[in-house]
Amino acid sequence: MMNIDIPLLNKAAGEKATSYIATLTKPIGSLGRLEEIAISLAEMTGNLTLEITPPGIIVFAADHGIVKEGVSAYPQEVTLQMVANIVNGGAAINVFGRQIGAKFKVVDVGVAGDVTEVQVIHKKIRQGTGSFLTELAMTREEAEKAVLIGYEEGIQIIESGIKCLIIGEVGIGNTTASSAVLASITGADPAAIVGFGTGISTEQHNRKVAVVRDAISLHQPKPTDAIDILSKVGGLEMAAMAGAMLAAAEKRVPILVDGFICTVSACLAKLMAPTVVDYMILSHQSVEPGHTTAVKHLQKEPLLQLNMRLGEGTGAAVAFPILQSAVNMINEMATFENSGVSGKDETEVIMNS
Amino acid sequence: MMNIDIPLLNKAAGEKATSYIATLTKPIGSLGRLEEIAISLAEMTGNLTLEITPPGIIVFAADHGIVKEGVSAYPQEVTLQMVANIVNGGAAINVFGRQIGAKFKVVDVGVAGDVTEVQVIHKKIRQGTGSFLTELAMTREEAEKAVLIGYEEGIQIIESGIKCLIIGEVGIGNTTASSAVLASITGADPAAIVGFGTGISTEQHNRKVAVVRDAISLHQPKPTDAIDILSKVGGLEMAAMAGAMLAAAEKRVPILVDGFICTVSACLAKLMAPTVVDYMILSHQSVEPGHTTAVKHLQKEPLLQLNMRLGEGTGAAVAFPILQSAVNMINEMATFENSGVSGKDETEVIMNS
Repeated sequence: MMNIDIPLLNKAAGEKATSYIATLTKPIGSLGRLEEIAISLAEMTGNLTLEITPPGIIVFAADHGIVKEGVSAYPQEVTLQMVANIVNGGAAINVFGRQIGAKFKVVDVGVAGDVTEVQVIHKKIRQGTGSFLTELAMTREEAEKAVLIGYEEGIQIIESGIKCLIIGEVGIGNTTASSAVLASITGADPAAIVGFGTGISTEQHNRKVAVVRDAISLHQPKPTDAIDILSKVGGLEMAAMAGAMLAAAEKRVPILVDGFICTVSACLAKLMAPTVVDYMILSHQSVEPGHTTAVKHLQKEPLLQLNMRLGEGTGAAVAFPILQSAVNMINEMATFENSGVSGKDETEVIMNS
Repeated sequence: MMNIDIPLLNKAAGEKATSYIATLTKPIGSLGRLEEIAISLAEMTGNLTLEITPPGIIVFAADHGIVKEGVSAYPQEVTLQMVANIVNGGAAINVFGRQIGAKFKVVDVGVAGDVTEVQVIHKKIRQGTGSFLTELAMTREEAEKAVLIGYEEGIQIIESGIKCLIIGEVGIGNTTASSAVLASITGADPAAIVGFGTGISTEQHNRKVAVVRDAISLHQPKPTDAIDILSKVGGLEMAAMAGAMLAAAEKRVPILVDGFICTVSACLAKLMAPTVVDYMILSHQSVEPGHTTAVKHLQKEPLLQLNMRLGEGTGAAVAFPILQSAVNMINEMATFENSGVSGKDETEVIMNS
């Protein structure tokens, strides 16, 4: 594995931001989480003048052999089809990505079948994972390679000038793999974290729980070894997502974390380098029951609760304007001193009271 | 009072939107509240192709005689100063308004003192309200005039081309008046709805509760008569806000409702014309304890929970991009049919599962 060097948060910049926000023409604390976000961004970037535009979105696509085991009962082709849909600009992540002016790329790290679109970054490691109920999802070497590809793609998009990273995924079967990874890391009961995905039957749900339980029983993934977990029950796109997060943290670029699969990948990244979490802001609370467990593991609180469960990075893209508001607050609001509004010791009590 | 004619929601357009959203390349229901918003916007506007840009923001400014009674113990000048700050573009609502490309105006309906800025729309009815602990806040005629001004300003900004209305306020003392109005409408115990505003002491809070209780005891506002309530314990800006909401509903323009004061004004508008509520989307849950009571009264659920309590319309402006995402979803996403992604009966179960 590559050696990751994540800088410490710049707490001094955070304190300066806190003091400066107290001078803005509004009651102290009245912008709630926007103020917290602005302070966090200052700590991450080390700057008081904040900049998160343009954001970058990387969507990693891969397939999952576990779909053979009846956890979704539907063909893998949809992964391939959705990659084409993304290339054509018709997927939800394209729509929300355009809304926020994001730089965008889609990377094939393991789609089953031939991805022919030239707009896709072709880094296929294998034709989907093995079915982890009976075999390894991938080798340790493949898992490491997928992390490295994610890291390199992260570095590349950061060097192209993006100031905030959103990481999405496409891959039929990836909530099953994510549930297995999360159970491996946290020891949670699969029955408590496996969801109904996008509407499977109770019977299929029971099967999905059993598959996750049996896979963990078979492979005994080591809870502290991300590569071991990935190779045994993981996904190629999850490995790449974790790698991209490491790149962002290393470069002091804030990571806006999407829903279930992305947050589980964040837990994997945390195993590789615990302080990567310092550079994460959780965008939204997913409907997937396991997401709550993953969120708790990161000890962060999502910004939005909109009952979303689409993946692709969509929750993060939808949340991005909230970060932009926090940035604009600190960059653009008048202070009591330069506006002639009565000083904060008075005004903090007065306004809107 | 003017005669308000609010059109019925176009349920047929909502049903068409529901059916169309089911054809988009994503699992059914996976965009959660974004889908609900898109359907609501279709019902409000009667259109399937949605448009909410540009939004418009009207900030109504007025003062409150009740500040004499020690509910905030701070001078009224801050209202005047904040109007100047808004004219100069330095207030939070300016920052967030610019972010969403809003048309913007600020209207003086009752600031105590001389508002000299030419950029302000001068509609002052009186120099702030009377202190409702001992006298009427305003006459019935003044309350009706304030509603009418709000209505006319609403019509004017709608005719200038805005597609979604945000209404904000500035006014020292207006959480006290809003608490009194809300208690009048709902019968809620003032102790349960009066907040600490922006940080008053326990002693001041006790005073604020007592003032609201005593004022209601003195005036006995009629719970179903908005003009009676406004004249006895209301605020000029609250009357105007209610009037602007009536204009928007009459013109089928969605109203993105801000926090405590705006939601209480929405409750007043509901008394004047119950179906005005059909055209409201609640933007955020305020920290003010009374806001929960007002939200329940409208039987709506706020979109955001960001611990904000600034007023001015800021919560609505920060939430606006979420509405834009809902609009972009329905206007821009590919369908299963035109994208070649396997049909929804399969895909609804598969994607991300």
